Amino acid sequence: MEKDGAVTVQEALDRLLQAAPPRPGIERIPTQQARNRYMAEPVQAQLSMPSYSASAIDGIAVRSEATQAASPHTPMKLREGEDFAWINTGDPIPAWADAVIMVEHVNVEGEGCVAITRPASSFQHVRQTGEDVAAGEVLLSAGQKIRPVDQAVLLAGGVWEVPVLTRPLVTIIATGRELVPPGLEPQRGEIVEFNSTLLGETLREWGAITRYGGIVPDDPALIRQTLEHALEQSDLVIVNAGSSKGAKDFVPSVLKEMGTLLVHGVSARPGKPAALAVVAGKPVLGLPGYPVSAYLGLEWFAKPWIRKWRGERTSHEEEVPARLSQPVHTRMGAEDHLRVRLLAGPDGNWDAIPLTKGAGVTFSLSQADGWIKVPADSSQWTAGKNVSVRLTRPLSLLRDRILVAGGDAPALDILLSAWSKQSGRAVARYVTGMQDALDRWRKGTCAAVVVETDGTDTLPECEERDTDLSHALPLGDVTWGWIVQKGNPDAIVGIQDWHRSDLHWILPPSGHSGRIFLEKAAVYAGVSIPLHRKEEPSYLKAAAAVYGEGAAAAWGIAFAEYADTVDFLPIARRRLSLLVTPSLLKETEGEILLQLLQDQPLRKVLQRSGLDKPTIIRG
Amino acid sequence: MEKDGAVTVQEALDRLLQAAPPRPGIERIPTQQARNRYMAEPVQAQLSMPSYSASAIDGIAVRSEATQAASPHTPMKLREGEDFAWINTGDPIPAWADAVIMVEHVNVEGEGCVAITRPASSFQHVRQTGEDVAAGEVLLSAGQKIRPVDQAVLLAGGVWEVPVLTRPLVTIIATGRELVPPGLEPQRGEIVEFNSTLLGETLREWGAITRYGGIVPDDPALIRQTLEHALEQSDLVIVNAGSSKGAKDFVPSVLKEMGTLLVHGVSARPGKPAALAVVAGKPVLGLPGYPVSAYLGLEWFAKPWIRKWRGERTSHEEEVPARLSQPVHTRMGAEDHLRVRLLAGPDGNWDAIPLTKGAGVTFSLSQADGWIKVPADSSQWTAGKNVSVRLTRPLSLLRDRILVAGGDAPALDILLSAWSKQSGRAVARYVTGMQDALDRWRKGTCAAVVVETDGTDTLPECEERDTDLSHALPLGDVTWGWIVQKGNPDAIVGIQDWHRSDLHWILPPSGHSGRIFLEKAAVYAGVSIPLHRKEEPSYLKAAAAVYGEGAAAAWGIAFAEYADTVDFLPIARRRLSLLVTPSLLKETEGEILLQLLQDQPLRKVLQRSGLDKPTIIRG
Repeated sequence: MEKDGAVTVQEALDRLLQAAPPRPGIERIPTQQARNRYMAEPVQAQLSMPSYSASAIDGIAVRSEATQAASPHTPMKLREGEDFAWINTGDPIPAWADAVIMVEHVNVEGEGCVAITRPASSFQHVRQTGEDVAAGEVLLSAGQKIRPVDQAVLLAGGVWEVPVLTRPLVTIIATGRELVPPGLEPQRGEIVEFNSTLLGETLREWGAITRYGGIVPDDPALIRQTLEHALEQSDLVIVNAGSSKGAKDFVPSVLKEMGTLLVHGVSARPGKPAALAVVAGKPVLGLPGYPVSAYLGLEWFAKPWIRKWRGERTSHEEEVPARLSQPVHTRMGAEDHLRVRLLAGPDGNWDAIPLTKGAGVTFSLSQADGWIKVPADSSQWTAGKNVSVRLTRPLSLLRDRILVAGGDAPALDILLSAWSKQSGRAVARYVTGMQDALDRWRKGTCAAVVVETDGTDTLPECEERDTDLSHALPLGDVTWGWIVQKGNPDAIVGIQDWHRSDLHWILPPSGHSGRIFLEKAAVYAGVSIPLHRKEEPSYLKAAAAVYGEGAAAAWGIAFAEYADTVDFLPIARRRLSLLVTPSLLKETEGEILLQLLQDQPLRKVLQRSGLDKPTIIRG
Repeated sequence: MEKDGAVTVQEALDRLLQAAPPRPGIERIPTQQARNRYMAEPVQAQLSMPSYSASAIDGIAVRSEATQAASPHTPMKLREGEDFAWINTGDPIPAWADAVIMVEHVNVEGEGCVAITRPASSFQHVRQTGEDVAAGEVLLSAGQKIRPVDQAVLLAGGVWEVPVLTRPLVTIIATGRELVPPGLEPQRGEIVEFNSTLLGETLREWGAITRYGGIVPDDPALIRQTLEHALEQSDLVIVNAGSSKGAKDFVPSVLKEMGTLLVHGVSARPGKPAALAVVAGKPVLGLPGYPVSAYLGLEWFAKPWIRKWRGERTSHEEEVPARLSQPVHTRMGAEDHLRVRLLAGPDGNWDAIPLTKGAGVTFSLSQADGWIKVPADSSQWTAGKNVSVRLTRPLSLLRDRILVAGGDAPALDILLSAWSKQSGRAVARYVTGMQDALDRWRKGTCAAVVVETDGTDTLPECEERDTDLSHALPLGDVTWGWIVQKGNPDAIVGIQDWHRSDLHWILPPSGHSGRIFLEKAAVYAGVSIPLHRKEEPSYLKAAAAVYGEGAAAAWGIAFAEYADTVDFLPIARRRLSLLVTPSLLKETEGEILLQLLQDQPLRKVLQRSGLDKPTIIRG
């Protein structure tokens, strides 16, 4: 336990399961509607399938013993009604017969008379009563998840209704004065309330029934009233936000009043300020407001609670071993849960690249390929460390995905999304410096690299001279420069203004092409890097920050869609080209990309995003 | 192509995709309802999130520059309204401020006055506009499956509606005079129509919308009329059964009349008699009537057609390498799809045991852990061959499952199902001979073996002397003997009747304990194995066959529930004991099993299924 009263996730979960164990019910529902439900009890077949001895084929029913003399040399004649009867697949075997001869092996000799050229063996082509399912057989055990094949076997065994576990009903209550429901454009100081959707839809994915309890202002009395109402109807209640220790975090004190506060604060990040309680015998999870924190709280507590509801022991989550691509620094005393992107190496190994640690970056939840956990007693992991990644996407998708590393440009996502759509392959981008991208390309962990040239085969922002760029596909030309606030109120010209202490700047991170360009320019201009600066790899995020008046200027790309929101000071032109592995270029995917680059409607869209048609296209 | 006109599955699929390609539509639906749908177009953020510079924490907003002199030795006093403003998480940053100091690092000195002991850096604890999502960012690409985290990021970016692919509407028509809907007890000659549920629920699992077209008698005019109606409303139509070449198989000729019959017969088993057609530009699948054949037809043709509907290139199906545990014999000229059970070896390798090839055995679809494919140019695979198994259950479930090998008894499934429920672990049974089971136990591919003793540590039906049975748990005692038709109309006494050529017998397969017992008895009695016999490993299936008058007698276990349907001639008693790996016995699972064996209500249930309480229980 930490000195601030935080407990480990495991200890917190144990307390929750102990104080508010799941109490599933049993309901009988039609088998035809039981897909994805969980068996509450074992079920035995009520009927045999087939319920009578049936022919397995089309042909004639015979007494096998009476056919033993038949051979190709001595065909045997059989008379209908005496020696045989015609029979179709599924027809009952007559009481006097014990075998069926396939119609293909029967020669019709005339009305009511056939010849056979080989003997039949007893039981031949006969489906015994119960061949599929025999009455009394246990068809499904308690705890099994019901799949379509299971529904079929239940019906085959005459089980029209099945006893299944009820599904847990979870109510999600959002709290916060600043929240507005999706559909309304948020005003300054307002936030779209999407956590309820994130939590609710995830819970439905896990098999729960969810109810939305609405948005409640930060008011202890209202929170209490909403909670009381929710608890009456629910098996589990989630209150989102207000679980921390700030001035408006009323949830823990309300829970303490209403029942037992089991945990306030867990030693894990993000998601630390979670509050767990039991009220009227039911569990209440108070989850922090940042989306990533709230999501992790759900995974830590709601998921195992629902698993226990179903009596499942294992989690069925897929993990893959990977090598950490960058060092990771965390604080001791709490485990850290990091989102990672996975790059597939040619040797079948995976490189795991940690994404932002920001608890507010919902987008990274969507972009992540998996999670790694740094234990509480570690504060740094070096690059190359072997880690286990809990996957959030199917492995086969990750293996098949085309990973494009390198520089940023808003138009790239649009181009690559079109490529993905046409090729049927997932395409993902990993924004990084050119040198890093080329290193990964040589290691084989990315299939394509965006390089910034000056229109020749030279990479001005990269020392790299070993890579053959002659086959790089020219994507288009961009204009680099300064994104400034509308009307340029600070009268910014460029790096000449870096010395001004009243200005805040947004720059690409070290190693990224734009940063290297600026560092070279600073040497020529004799200026030093500005004091008030922030690193941001995405040009669109940089532009949004300037628009939001969080910075005076940001290095970025000229882009028609900015026009309404910010101004742009052009500085330099660069050619973006795509270096693709020869194998990929030779496949259909290469052809598709070449066609897309010639597609006029798409080129117009790209141009609006700042990617002009390259003036020279290689033959 | 085979001489009977059959084509490969791949060729058949190519023809279908060529002649009747999927034509998905696009619809705009609320983001909050878009889970598990597929993006039709890329979507860009409409808003930035946050849409203003916001405080990331609770604290005070400051000008970073004005705080530089603060240190633990020289605390700096700040005045509210001049130097700082109180700010909560999510509040907008005032225009004059550029950083936030955490409330924990602020000392309140009096009304409107605080002291700080360290400087703030610019941008500190400030969430930039667009930090999560910047307007214009591509949030999701075309083709991506929408997960809860994706719904959240769409809402964060102000995307209230998303363009998604419509879902294919599939109508399923069942044909056959012998079919009765589930819920009615089938009479002699009738079969419960469960294929529509099997096919329809599987299609829903794959993202289709399904409509049930009802049961249509085998009548070309009615089939045509139903098809016409279904085609008007559907993207794909499935006609189940009537696709073969028998007297009542009208589907291919009806399809030929209505449109183009692309394929009739594929060179793959089971599922060979599939018929594929295009009618009015829409695909029609005529699938064979046996459940396993129908299911495979769906996997071969409907699944890739739906995948193409979504523009997906890869199937995301999980495969694992395994070693074939038994030899496999197939016929050349057609690929064979075999259901297998997987046993996890201690070395992390998997043993694959082929299950029945019977196309009518729905139960094996439910019991299978995966599929293997024997190519058309192979006719036999030896034991030990390396194969690739396409999984039908999560790998983690298979790894965690307790596999119990050995002899059959109807009560075992009931006991093991209770064990599974209490322990939260899947438990599966693999019915085999004792020697085979013990061999697998020593290899470590099963965690428990059911052994049949005479009440001491001796295994009368096994040569095995090396295994220490002293720790085997006694489960109970059973009575072996002959299951005969009610009233014993054939006046059967036992193996003395094996010579009678009018009688048909059902015996356990070679190597199974009951069979070894009978073979020894035959030696003493001087009789030979009966001519008319069938091997059946399951005692319940054997009993069902006798009840259905498909055999005169079957070797089995005495069992109170038989009483209404068959009679029983007792011959010998055996003690069933469970040999469990010491590790499993020491875990909670071992304790749970010991408790269950003492549970009175459960013992009563087991007794009704023929497993009596053992007279001696070891201490």
